[in-house]
Amino acid sequence: MKLATIRTTEGTKAVRVEGDTFVDLGVDSVSTLLASEDWEARAAADGPTLSAADADFAPVTPEPKKIICVGLNYRTHIKEMGRDLPEYPTLFAKYPEALIGANDDIILPPEDDQYDWEAELAIVIGKKVRRAKGAEAEAAIAGYSTLNDVTMRGWQYRSKMWLQGKTWANTTPMGPYLVTKDEVGGGRPALKIEDALNGETKQSDTTGDLVFDPITLVEYISTILTLEPGDVIATGTTGGVGHARKPSQYMKAGDVLVTEIEGLGRCENRCVAEVVE
Amino acid sequence: MKLATIRTTEGTKAVRVEGDTFVDLGVDSVSTLLASEDWEARAAADGPTLSAADADFAPVTPEPKKIICVGLNYRTHIKEMGRDLPEYPTLFAKYPEALIGANDDIILPPEDDQYDWEAELAIVIGKKVRRAKGAEAEAAIAGYSTLNDVTMRGWQYRSKMWLQGKTWANTTPMGPYLVTKDEVGGGRPALKIEDALNGETKQSDTTGDLVFDPITLVEYISTILTLEPGDVIATGTTGGVGHARKPSQYMKAGDVLVTEIEGLGRCENRCVAEVVE
Repeated sequence: MKLATIRTTEGTKAVRVEGDTFVDLGVDSVSTLLASEDWEARAAADGPTLSAADADFAPVTPEPKKIICVGLNYRTHIKEMGRDLPEYPTLFAKYPEALIGANDDIILPPEDDQYDWEAELAIVIGKKVRRAKGAEAEAAIAGYSTLNDVTMRGWQYRSKMWLQGKTWANTTPMGPYLVTKDEVGGGRPALKIEDALNGETKQSDTTGDLVFDPITLVEYISTILTLEPGDVIATGTTGGVGHARKPSQYMKAGDVLVTEIEGLGRCENRCVAEVVE
Repeated sequence: MKLATIRTTEGTKAVRVEGDTFVDLGVDSVSTLLASEDWEARAAADGPTLSAADADFAPVTPEPKKIICVGLNYRTHIKEMGRDLPEYPTLFAKYPEALIGANDDIILPPEDDQYDWEAELAIVIGKKVRRAKGAEAEAAIAGYSTLNDVTMRGWQYRSKMWLQGKTWANTTPMGPYLVTKDEVGGGRPALKIEDALNGETKQSDTTGDLVFDPITLVEYISTILTLEPGDVIATGTTGGVGHARKPSQYMKAGDVLVTEIEGLGRCENRCVAEVVE
């Protein structure tokens, strides 16, 4: 199934996508849907239909309690940098204020000028789990979304911790869909992932190249704390970011960033300079 | 005012502390209270009273949307380590699952064995602000609490990002009170802060020694994103942590950690080994 959270004149709605039609699932977001133990049955139910034309997508899971980000997770990228494969995942956080919908503007704050792209596969959790192993970890994965962990490199490297470059308000596209895992390869999907700036491809890889795949990440993170429905794990990015290019490249106002993962859908976001009074 | 969130047989309640009496404020938590624009008037209102004897304290602000932690922030500690004072704060995150009440057990997971203490002043936000400066930043601070950023050093240093050592479930005491800033020195409080393990003092300093004081932290963090009522900023710890001692010292099951800040109250928490099936 392909699910989305859309903005309407009546507020947000969770919908199932059926070609050019949305089926209204009767709740305000995919997050609320996932909080029901029988969400899979609810997501498959009949309901009033809406036209998908001119859809205004909210972040698929608005305001997740946790967004956990993974760094250094694509094998080819780590090897091309001459590094050894890591023994453990690198984890950091992003706060919900960072999320935007699949076609919303990316807001470029005046306090930085090194705006960079990081195409990522996002895992969305569908079951509450702690110390899940194997099949239980896989069962906790509701599905996947397309995400771009847009990063303010100047602030990221102000200190040794990356958080402050990773969580600027209204900078992280996520969506348009949550595609359930059964449609895209289960707990270890191998999907083409890429992004392009103003039509020029910047990153291109396959999610099959992840050092720590979704099942492994759910196992690892749920050792530390309970994962809950609607929580998001951004699984890391691959080679081709602007900061690592010679010379460095960054985004600027007016640029359009397209992020796409095979089977999961496409985010297309315009960069807009924030005006601060 | 001194506020708390207590657990009762009817669920949690926000209360004002008046000596040996609690005044029931009619909402389920201090977080809910702070979400009202007129929370100061509501917090000062009359209400039914409860005995403070045998109070069961929940984390003062249960499930904050954001817990933002600051590293390397005590001047004397940085200097004694031979480091330069930092130009910018070091920021990382903790998820709400980590919080426990002022007298709850600290749960020691079997996956690590380097359980360390970090006494910290916690700022609790009382107003929604973005890019707040000076007086506006100070006005956004509702008050302060005592917190101990208990850390799993093994996992903290598995990667370059500290998050995975900082956010284990049920490890971070916070409370018992939120004391409004007018009672403890406004936006730049100078309060004695200390912790002790089994009665032996481990850390002792004053919050006046912070490199980045509460007003400065609210200014800095609200540049990145919107701070909202109930959000928590843990302002960093001072010298004396177990990991930096020669030889290193860590907590073990049965130990009692007492964390106290002048005027804010005291957390007393027993360490309990988690049994995983």
